[in-house]
Amino acid sequence: MAAGEDRPVAVGLDVGGTKLAAALIAGDGARTERAEIPSPVGSSAELLAAVEEVVGRLDPDGRLPVGIGFAGIVTRDGTVRYGPNVDVTDLPLAAELAGDRDAPVVVLNDASAAMAGELHAGAARGVDDAVLLTLGTGVGGGLAVDGRLVHGAGGFAGELGHLLVEDGGRACPCGNHGCLEAYASGHAIAAVAAERLRAGGPGAADSPLEADTVTGRDVAAAAGDGDALALGVLEWAGGWLGVALASLVNALDPALVVVGGGVVAGAGAELLPVARKVVADRVVGAAHRTIPPVVPAELGNDAGLVGAGLLAAGRP
Amino acid sequence: MAAGEDRPVAVGLDVGGTKLAAALIAGDGARTERAEIPSPVGSSAELLAAVEEVVGRLDPDGRLPVGIGFAGIVTRDGTVRYGPNVDVTDLPLAAELAGDRDAPVVVLNDASAAMAGELHAGAARGVDDAVLLTLGTGVGGGLAVDGRLVHGAGGFAGELGHLLVEDGGRACPCGNHGCLEAYASGHAIAAVAAERLRAGGPGAADSPLEADTVTGRDVAAAAGDGDALALGVLEWAGGWLGVALASLVNALDPALVVVGGGVVAGAGAELLPVARKVVADRVVGAAHRTIPPVVPAELGNDAGLVGAGLLAAGRP
Repeated sequence: MAAGEDRPVAVGLDVGGTKLAAALIAGDGARTERAEIPSPVGSSAELLAAVEEVVGRLDPDGRLPVGIGFAGIVTRDGTVRYGPNVDVTDLPLAAELAGDRDAPVVVLNDASAAMAGELHAGAARGVDDAVLLTLGTGVGGGLAVDGRLVHGAGGFAGELGHLLVEDGGRACPCGNHGCLEAYASGHAIAAVAAERLRAGGPGAADSPLEADTVTGRDVAAAAGDGDALALGVLEWAGGWLGVALASLVNALDPALVVVGGGVVAGAGAELLPVARKVVADRVVGAAHRTIPPVVPAELGNDAGLVGAGLLAAGRP
Repeated sequence: MAAGEDRPVAVGLDVGGTKLAAALIAGDGARTERAEIPSPVGSSAELLAAVEEVVGRLDPDGRLPVGIGFAGIVTRDGTVRYGPNVDVTDLPLAAELAGDRDAPVVVLNDASAAMAGELHAGAARGVDDAVLLTLGTGVGGGLAVDGRLVHGAGGFAGELGHLLVEDGGRACPCGNHGCLEAYASGHAIAAVAAERLRAGGPGAADSPLEADTVTGRDVAAAAGDGDALALGVLEWAGGWLGVALASLVNALDPALVVVGGGVVAGAGAELLPVARKVVADRVVGAAHRTIPPVVPAELGNDAGLVGAGLLAAGRP
């Protein structure tokens, strides 16, 4: 490590559905001190107060840049338009916080923040062009081109969970049908397992899984124990993940594809090989070009706060 | 126009399936002098000689930058890996040409070059984030992020004709099934019209189209005359175009979507409204964000040579 790289350069926050996690972020992405409070589920004022409290704990003098990854729709200037977990619309979060401080404040979608974290301090270190998918309860994403995070015109780039892999297909929580999120999220994996258990599909009779209670985590655990139904569901989900990734590789030609989130932490060993095979089969002109590796994320739940912090500190 | 903007800043070329078109390109994208020869279908040496001949006609002193859009797979350093129209593999075209010149030489995929042309001198002037699709015999594409063309790690970004809109669906010339090109190219539109004519689908009995000879151009012309079968085929193709565009908008959040190529020149009035409606229906969080306009390209067949020329002259 070069001298001074362990000095904090920013406060990084991740505002998720259950908690607001924060850390002091060093120049190399290391987390040197942490703070955490439960996520406020109420008003804009409550969210703002919670963010100010946790930032104040880590940076009492208000001197450090602040970066916030937020699970929801955030404009390029840091206004929270909508979040599924908070009752907030059109909160100019970056501007409100910046009013109290001498340093930059950056607010962006949490999965895009995670892409920045993996790009500058995680699995995509040293890579200029990368794609990130996070498979959790939902599916999020982020893109990097020429070493820089892609924000899009309004700040809404990276909604990779809503790539249409089968238009008119399975219902997605977003209201559409056929989005990747309806095929590769923890929720989707659990739903398909329950359907197969109820339908008595292959392996249902021998499976320890219960249709009424099965979770994505249960499917991953059962697959790890060799359960045929669980393995079949993960193979199916991995195939659809591969379809989405093939389209992304065709569109963006990344040097690396990073896949993170709780689903990969539990079931990456079953999902990723299938996805890799589909990518290799479907990318156009495969004989004449490089197919990017598909690798697990490295920063886990810290990716968003690391990325948001490094962006606030001036990384691109 | 600022002083000097009509002075040529580069030679731009477009190496297509039937001809090699070239022009002197001014700083504002204007074409001030043209040259054209039939495309060589033979060896690397023939292709190189043809390019050198047409460049020599326009820039006998060899002083101008040269940009070449090429219908095929081109690496980021300007090596032609493969082209469907020429018998060439692994020709370091940029390096070969640069050896004779004092100025930069840029070679890239023709649809990416067209994106650069529309971005710097066409329909996407003044826009930083844009997506281009070209619907011709095949389907090509290009992307711009933060005012710069997206090349991808190896130079292969923008293969938007091979976005998977229906995995396992219609056969694509690339060898896969379900690529956009199998739904929205001139070839696909003709093929679907022929299928519907043979199957006696809605409007088949009244249609002037002939299953054995119908072309994409015929379908567009018949649709313009109100033929129900032709209109149905274009509505179908426009719907699939919309599915691909919705995924691209979700991924990249462009300020503008530009659609060009011969299919749009002939049938844009039928295709684009359907595509726009699907985009508006399918983009995630549409109530909380801007949906980009979907507009026709402006530079026609010149987009590639304009863009390649401007890139060679240093535009990003």
